[in-house]
Amino acid sequence: MGVVATSIEAYPAEPVPRSEPEDALTALVRLVAADLHACNRTIVARMDSPVALIPQLAAHIVAAGGKRLRPLLTLAASRLCGYDSANGTRHVDLAACVEFIHTATLLHDDVVDESALRRGLASANAIFGNAASVLVGDFLFARAFQLMVADGSLKVLGILSHAAATIAEGEVLQLATQNDLTTDENRYLDVIKGKTAALFDAACRVGAVISDRPAAEEDALATYGMALGMAFQLVDDALDYAADQAKLGKTVGDDFREGKVTLPVLVAFHAGDAEEQAFWRRTIEDSEQTDADLERALALMERHDAIAATIARAALFAQDAKRALSVFPASDIRQALMDVADFTVRRGR
Amino acid sequence: MGVVATSIEAYPAEPVPRSEPEDALTALVRLVAADLHACNRTIVARMDSPVALIPQLAAHIVAAGGKRLRPLLTLAASRLCGYDSANGTRHVDLAACVEFIHTATLLHDDVVDESALRRGLASANAIFGNAASVLVGDFLFARAFQLMVADGSLKVLGILSHAAATIAEGEVLQLATQNDLTTDENRYLDVIKGKTAALFDAACRVGAVISDRPAAEEDALATYGMALGMAFQLVDDALDYAADQAKLGKTVGDDFREGKVTLPVLVAFHAGDAEEQAFWRRTIEDSEQTDADLERALALMERHDAIAATIARAALFAQDAKRALSVFPASDIRQALMDVADFTVRRGR
Repeated sequence: MGVVATSIEAYPAEPVPRSEPEDALTALVRLVAADLHACNRTIVARMDSPVALIPQLAAHIVAAGGKRLRPLLTLAASRLCGYDSANGTRHVDLAACVEFIHTATLLHDDVVDESALRRGLASANAIFGNAASVLVGDFLFARAFQLMVADGSLKVLGILSHAAATIAEGEVLQLATQNDLTTDENRYLDVIKGKTAALFDAACRVGAVISDRPAAEEDALATYGMALGMAFQLVDDALDYAADQAKLGKTVGDDFREGKVTLPVLVAFHAGDAEEQAFWRRTIEDSEQTDADLERALALMERHDAIAATIARAALFAQDAKRALSVFPASDIRQALMDVADFTVRRGR
Repeated sequence: MGVVATSIEAYPAEPVPRSEPEDALTALVRLVAADLHACNRTIVARMDSPVALIPQLAAHIVAAGGKRLRPLLTLAASRLCGYDSANGTRHVDLAACVEFIHTATLLHDDVVDESALRRGLASANAIFGNAASVLVGDFLFARAFQLMVADGSLKVLGILSHAAATIAEGEVLQLATQNDLTTDENRYLDVIKGKTAALFDAACRVGAVISDRPAAEEDALATYGMALGMAFQLVDDALDYAADQAKLGKTVGDDFREGKVTLPVLVAFHAGDAEEQAFWRRTIEDSEQTDADLERALALMERHDAIAATIARAALFAQDAKRALSVFPASDIRQALMDVADFTVRRGR
């Protein structure tokens, strides 16, 4: 039994309340609805360019929807920190920056993964080609920095340029761990910290910075964002082996086919017997897969509770996220952010 | 006869001196040699990352050489403007930023163009794969912004983030004009202005900004950089149909095979008879090419002096570049920059 399975067994499953009057994400959106609409308008206005293909492709991925989770975090963090939205739109502008950075990475991810679907629709690279996706991603990334320069805070520029570099490092590390079952849990956690949690962290921290809050509150929000991002990506990685395609908006088994070494795979691999480990080596390390292999992979994960273990790990991060917010006085926005942490885990159950 | 060929005929060929004691680029390098060495050290130090694949791939393209033309421009412009290098390293740090932005676009370009060669060596995507090239490009881009934030000038950040967005727009516009012979010369000039000249412009302007020079000098250097970049790309596009592979460091006829609508193609197309135009339509618009077609294309360009016309257009831009520097008093560095403009054109003859 390897180190990963052992450490997974140590995670207590957190009891999560199963009923709620309202989806927690919907509740958070409702609290900052006006700001989120303003942010959407900024996104549409600032992704424009005289080069027609840019707004066309950007609209496909930006305007077509998605949860807007990351800009939502910037807006909610600003609200929690008492940002004076009557006298400024920095929270809205920077939320748009965060979404541009995220969208740029999505466009590049789809090229990297050769994905055919994104949010349940044909991916931009499938429609417009890899070349356009790479270049429009570059444009949105540059545009994000132009928006930050217009905002004028070197501190914010530092936070988001650091996040952008960390995202790229996480993505490259993910590439290096692909098809490699010697990857351990810590390395996997480093990958998701970089590729996902770093931007959640930055998105929240920016809200505190523009509200001129003390370092303790800034750090608390960054901790919340980091832990929420970890929980979010763990659940995403679990859903890749669990959700039906329509619900997830992407093909089930994508990670399996790409040989991505995520926590569900690591748990099942380390808990498996010699024959099972040979199966994982063939399918993940050697990329030799037949049509029946995904079903076998799902069955092995079921046998070793690999999905449940992954969700349990996510639940621990959600607890960390909620705990971080205790430095703020109770309020509807604080409660909504805490509920989002629980909701992030619950969508995996 | 189309608008392009007509306007080409109007370009007088500039008489260019044919002998010189020293290659102009070598002379410029010699004048800022210490700064360029410092810049190279900064580049190597700042492309490091705990994710090993990043410095590996970055070293392949950054440290393996290249002319360092763009950072050289930042260093030379700083010298021309009297930047006090005894009391600061901003010129060196920002020259490194400029090279990082350039390198990021090279990595992405090779993915977009599916190039096998870069600077005479196997391209990064050919060795490390498209995914790594896209992601390490993103990292270098983000790292450039981190360096700028450390430099601390919002004005510089504005100049280089604008340049980065303009580069991406130029690249996307190039994609839109690919295989399209209705592209006119102005549109072609817009493409090379974006994809190449914008960064030359910014690289020079930054040198004036950090030296606190008046707007007239800042604008003069930007004009020099813009015109030099136009000349440089025009000659590059001519060489794609003229140079031998070893000299150019890339495969001759790349642009032809990719259906890129560059000035040599436009000149030959518009000057051609009906049968010749049908040839260009088949090879460039319909991408139907046989092995013999490149030779035919070269012969048609020879017949219509398409390469000479392209170089003549470059020579006009080089004149503009030199003229812009007249606001500065004569000095060895001013002369070297002027000579580089001539040299840029001469490498195409």
